[in-house]
Amino acid sequence: MSNQTELRCIHCARTYRADAVEYFCPVCGHNNGILDVLYDYDAAKAELTREQLAANPDRSIWRYLPLLPVNDASLLPRLQVGCTPIYDAPRLASELGVARCWVKDEGRNSTASFKDRASAVGVVKALEQKAATIACASTGNAASSLAGFAAAAGIAAVIFVPAHAPPAKVAQLLVYGAQVFSVDGTYDEAWELCMEASAEFGWYNRNCAINPYLVEGKKTVSLELAEQFLALTPGSFADWVVVSVGDGCTIAGLWKGLREMHLLGILPRLPRILGVQAEGCNPFEIAWRGNGELVPCAARTLADSIAVGHPRNFRKGMNAVIESGGAFVSVADEEILASIPLLAQRAGVFGEPAGVAGMAGVRRAVERGLIHRSESVAIVMTGNGLKDIKSAMRSAGEAIPIGPTLEELRRGLHLEPAISTRAVATH
Amino acid sequence: MSNQTELRCIHCARTYRADAVEYFCPVCGHNNGILDVLYDYDAAKAELTREQLAANPDRSIWRYLPLLPVNDASLLPRLQVGCTPIYDAPRLASELGVARCWVKDEGRNSTASFKDRASAVGVVKALEQKAATIACASTGNAASSLAGFAAAAGIAAVIFVPAHAPPAKVAQLLVYGAQVFSVDGTYDEAWELCMEASAEFGWYNRNCAINPYLVEGKKTVSLELAEQFLALTPGSFADWVVVSVGDGCTIAGLWKGLREMHLLGILPRLPRILGVQAEGCNPFEIAWRGNGELVPCAARTLADSIAVGHPRNFRKGMNAVIESGGAFVSVADEEILASIPLLAQRAGVFGEPAGVAGMAGVRRAVERGLIHRSESVAIVMTGNGLKDIKSAMRSAGEAIPIGPTLEELRRGLHLEPAISTRAVATH
Repeated sequence: MSNQTELRCIHCARTYRADAVEYFCPVCGHNNGILDVLYDYDAAKAELTREQLAANPDRSIWRYLPLLPVNDASLLPRLQVGCTPIYDAPRLASELGVARCWVKDEGRNSTASFKDRASAVGVVKALEQKAATIACASTGNAASSLAGFAAAAGIAAVIFVPAHAPPAKVAQLLVYGAQVFSVDGTYDEAWELCMEASAEFGWYNRNCAINPYLVEGKKTVSLELAEQFLALTPGSFADWVVVSVGDGCTIAGLWKGLREMHLLGILPRLPRILGVQAEGCNPFEIAWRGNGELVPCAARTLADSIAVGHPRNFRKGMNAVIESGGAFVSVADEEILASIPLLAQRAGVFGEPAGVAGMAGVRRAVERGLIHRSESVAIVMTGNGLKDIKSAMRSAGEAIPIGPTLEELRRGLHLEPAISTRAVATH
Repeated sequence: MSNQTELRCIHCARTYRADAVEYFCPVCGHNNGILDVLYDYDAAKAELTREQLAANPDRSIWRYLPLLPVNDASLLPRLQVGCTPIYDAPRLASELGVARCWVKDEGRNSTASFKDRASAVGVVKALEQKAATIACASTGNAASSLAGFAAAAGIAAVIFVPAHAPPAKVAQLLVYGAQVFSVDGTYDEAWELCMEASAEFGWYNRNCAINPYLVEGKKTVSLELAEQFLALTPGSFADWVVVSVGDGCTIAGLWKGLREMHLLGILPRLPRILGVQAEGCNPFEIAWRGNGELVPCAARTLADSIAVGHPRNFRKGMNAVIESGGAFVSVADEEILASIPLLAQRAGVFGEPAGVAGMAGVRRAVERGLIHRSESVAIVMTGNGLKDIKSAMRSAGEAIPIGPTLEELRRGLHLEPAISTRAVATH
């Protein structure tokens, strides 16, 4: 059984029994009253020890059940999620100007993004409530992961995507059999429609900002990071953990997981968190550099997964950076594009624009003196590059056409390489 | 150190020391003289036991080092490869008309295809020979996986692709920094050019059919299958293992791995092998139903990864089916397309056309009475659906466009679902 105790509103601090509320604090409403899941950490600590972890053959996020809000373990989905690889990337570290650099490849999840961690938990919660349908609004990855996990669990998924979502992501969720509505409007409008429709039709709402359980899935990336560093650098941890930021849910989950592993004595010390946004859509950075208050803005960036002008989990996301003594930076779309081949060529990891944005932000943070050259960084690469081939092709140039002869090849070999990081960076 | 002993020509049975030949039997030439890697199985058996496997924390193909041709373990690539999940898929089993069905999702590898297993070994062999460049000709997946593993290892990759290769696959390998030549010709012409160029410029040749070590990487899928079934159904195994067939190397590796695990006593009994081809490109099936001799044919199928009219590893591939008492079948492109949403919706696994072709072949084999309804099948799904979004979109229909209002949604909900397996199958 779960060690979950209550839900606490992050705005007014009222606490609720899990069965007393549906998603958010009824007093503060869905814009402010985001709930946080509380646990009996003494009980969790007894169950989740280094020894227990080392002996556990489960290679998925469910190895962390003592810290997850799951009441009925018989409902866990079949699809494997989590336990993604982490790579020590020395060539990338020298490129970025840091002492050491690790890359955690979240593109290796079931539907090829970090969001699978949240969807896996969301589908379990929907099944626990005997919901026949689960819904979400998403720019893509949350949707495709929901569609995949709903298909594996055999429940219906209804998904609202903004009309500008990339075709690859939409195709993926259609293939999984979700009913997909392409909303002629912004992400924010698709989001509000999903809220209304879920209430109207009794669907379980997977939207991460209002549903308190999704962040619990997301935090598993940090539970893993803490455990993986036990093997990588025993007794030590990265100075910074880096992730791109859209809604604020991912960075919030990341921070919560780190705090929990610290509390359980598995993580030796807490790192700082670097949140990275796109220059064309950086409400977190603006608020962090200003008075800390959210001013929704336009969303102009090719990194669609973080193109969120009105972050729904602003407070939790902001707290992650403030509490950790971290920072927000933002990067230009050209820097994001140039980071795709750079990460692939230095670390062997192919990421989508929002996935590599974190890496681009490290360089920016080093330039600004926020990250010192003597420090180490762990970058969470959130989505597979195959999710956005158009951006990959823009970043990488084209093949050299030749006829099928050695003579033509010889001529081709004398051409400039089709690809080089330099060539991309100056495009 | 490796338990590899010698190399044996599958045509004339001459044996060679590993350092005495480069790729193929010098007597029989590269069209016939494919070599097979031999091992000291007594030594391997002592090192690779159920107990040793259970205690080994390595979650990659390198857990099977006693059965791999690696001389210098310090050269193993950083990218994680193998240990892909396998799913029991009861809803798919009833759809296909078999007693039980498992799906092994090879799209979860580093560069999202089965080919990573071969490329990982290929790059190690290139490094052992101190090669500065590694080359291959590929319709896509072998190339992108080579590019990824070469990037991670820091050596140069030169890749020849036929001009019709899907843009997503080409983008992936360009991003990894390979020098890519788009050959105006067939796959066969690209293959021959790679052979010539490797000899001319001293590049290490990763082409699977002539390089004996690549099949060794591929066989790891079966080493894993055998080990995974120890947990799934102790003392038992699937009646059939199913895979799509192009060059013949994958099915050859699959069969070799199964035989080895049987020899080591880890696999209780040998299954039959079902090789699945596309109707527009089925030289194996034609030969198997006829006199057993290869007649190269045209390659007309949207499943580009198995569009090989002149299979270079014909003999090894054919042996897998004959020795196992298995079968070859072929399926129409429409069946392949319809299998994409079927697999995704029944098992939660999104595959590319060649990846799902195996599943389509199961239904065909059941119809033909080759597979009995009382039998079980393990399907190796060889590549991620994100590799070929164009085919995915053809298979899955489109999102329903609506305005951002409940009224428009209500109207949309009354429309036929955008997707259903039935709708796809009748396209």
